[in-house]
Amino acid sequence: MSKITAIQTDHYRIPLPVVLTDSTHGEMSHFELVTVRLRDEHGVEGMGYTYTVDAGGGAIHAVIERELKPLLLGQDASRIEQLWEEMWWKVHFVGRSGIVAFAIAAVDVALWDLKGNLFREPLWKLLGGHSPVVKGYAGGIDLMFPLEQLLEQAQSFQEKGFRAIKMKVGRDQLSEDVARVSAMRDFLGPDFPLMVDANMRWSVAESIRASRALADYDVYWLEEPTIPDDIEGYRRIATEGLLPVANGENLHSLYEFQKIIAGSAVSFPEPDLATLGGITVWMKVAHLAEAFNLPVTTHGVHDLHVHLLAAVPNASYLEAHGFGLERFMEHPMIFKDGVTLAPDRPGHGISLDWDQLAASRNEN
Amino acid sequence: MSKITAIQTDHYRIPLPVVLTDSTHGEMSHFELVTVRLRDEHGVEGMGYTYTVDAGGGAIHAVIERELKPLLLGQDASRIEQLWEEMWWKVHFVGRSGIVAFAIAAVDVALWDLKGNLFREPLWKLLGGHSPVVKGYAGGIDLMFPLEQLLEQAQSFQEKGFRAIKMKVGRDQLSEDVARVSAMRDFLGPDFPLMVDANMRWSVAESIRASRALADYDVYWLEEPTIPDDIEGYRRIATEGLLPVANGENLHSLYEFQKIIAGSAVSFPEPDLATLGGITVWMKVAHLAEAFNLPVTTHGVHDLHVHLLAAVPNASYLEAHGFGLERFMEHPMIFKDGVTLAPDRPGHGISLDWDQLAASRNEN
Repeated sequence: MSKITAIQTDHYRIPLPVVLTDSTHGEMSHFELVTVRLRDEHGVEGMGYTYTVDAGGGAIHAVIERELKPLLLGQDASRIEQLWEEMWWKVHFVGRSGIVAFAIAAVDVALWDLKGNLFREPLWKLLGGHSPVVKGYAGGIDLMFPLEQLLEQAQSFQEKGFRAIKMKVGRDQLSEDVARVSAMRDFLGPDFPLMVDANMRWSVAESIRASRALADYDVYWLEEPTIPDDIEGYRRIATEGLLPVANGENLHSLYEFQKIIAGSAVSFPEPDLATLGGITVWMKVAHLAEAFNLPVTTHGVHDLHVHLLAAVPNASYLEAHGFGLERFMEHPMIFKDGVTLAPDRPGHGISLDWDQLAASRNEN
Repeated sequence: MSKITAIQTDHYRIPLPVVLTDSTHGEMSHFELVTVRLRDEHGVEGMGYTYTVDAGGGAIHAVIERELKPLLLGQDASRIEQLWEEMWWKVHFVGRSGIVAFAIAAVDVALWDLKGNLFREPLWKLLGGHSPVVKGYAGGIDLMFPLEQLLEQAQSFQEKGFRAIKMKVGRDQLSEDVARVSAMRDFLGPDFPLMVDANMRWSVAESIRASRALADYDVYWLEEPTIPDDIEGYRRIATEGLLPVANGENLHSLYEFQKIIAGSAVSFPEPDLATLGGITVWMKVAHLAEAFNLPVTTHGVHDLHVHLLAAVPNASYLEAHGFGLERFMEHPMIFKDGVTLAPDRPGHGISLDWDQLAASRNEN
């Protein structure tokens, strides 16, 4: 028994180090961070968080404070599946996806962290313990970068230890994307994994056209070519196009992943624990992918996801991109020769600098 | 041009006249109402609302106030599709469903009401104008009623002018449901439309078993036998069971309806405009159903839905069940001989008693 005695939820709106642009979200100047800190009756603590692209943080905070917190206080933190199910059903009518999936995620991460802290065990071992060596890629948000800046960024990624890179596509003309991908392939040389991400910019027909045009440059995967709601469209892109397809950052439940995985609509499922209801669901998606002979990759919050990829046998590349959250971390992730190591600290092992974060705190 | 100059959002938590029970939500003592009042530069007003089963209203209010309101102010209220698309994409990363679908719904209803008020035209005509005569059914939330109370309720529904009734199923044993449905059929006599609603209580196998067992009592439709995420499961229940299937109150996008309708997984699509992004999406679902030779029914907010069923040629029964919201309305809906009339007042023609509501207002 590990009774939950305290829950603190905070909402931060944090300026990005540089303004970012992709084909869907336009210019992004801030991101939001919602944190949850739990304490049990023995004083053991757990910390979880989720994030947004600068819309919805206030609502996530409201769901946790108003709906989830009253449900959690006094309950046994060790029964995560049971608490997860209670949270899911408490907000099911307004849920199944979206904001409540983010809210549940922040709580779920805190529960798993608490469990890791209780046993003094790092999450990657607690969750399965496959291998601490995790390969990663640098995710550039660079759609509007001039070509020179794009290549400079690639060089800086290499200097930071990355041996795989993802770039944005989805410019107004496909020929622009082809020229940029071609230049990147020339710069990186053969076999260097190069992923591209269209952030839902295209129709299915445009996606298939792009998939065929970009295949000449040995693209490792084509990510989110169209809206995530169109599963049959994804199946067509995956089978009629010439590139493996990655998809998942906008899916918010195990069931949505079941549909794309069982529907032959994806080669690289890309669950994001922070937007999917947490570690509990992410692990199920990873195992579902394994059952379908697929790898699993990630989106966002790499400091958390490194544990999960280190836990499972079917890990693909970890996306390293955290909106500059590393500024507030005691142990930011380090890459060398294309890989990083899952921490051996208990739980997720992430310590946030609460004093420094306080300047960006939102009153709700 | 009809520039939006003012938006007021309010959140109410309102006690139910009696505590209600169904198989999923347990006991419900309150519901939440979130209202949006728009005014344009010419002083024309529009009012919209959505509701919850007592969780998530604070988050809906936060989405409207923080994310949607800044986007809407100063824009042209007459371009609803364009505003709808902007709202959808502004909150897409935390959206696609759930709380943001409720928030967009409240705004969308206000925009349509404003348009109706501008032209002095009732919504049912503005949206198509098929027939103002709408047949409806009384939706009982009566799972735990003793049999005697269930039949008394049926009699009172008949006395209120209803000629179709829905009851809850999903008791611990199927034999209990069968006995209750059998008693209701005996009470109502042959041909009187009797629907049953399981509120997602069952597995697919249990649903098929129940569908076969209840078919002896000429059940008009079996509603929500299992979780809405399982589309293939619904297809099986619809084809292997013996009853038509209704589903939709927990679906939150046009795409989700496309999957059940095109997937032969539903006989009575049941979109709820208040949980689905508003009138704009509801109309698309109705037309999609028509294209697949299906009727369309509704869930909740009957004072709004009456306009939509009156607008389209493929209307099935209107669900009349409003959590007692009629206490706050100047013109509560009246049924006679099983039908009601869509109002001829401009817009939706609903006037809420704001003074009386004020006692239930939540400070956010």
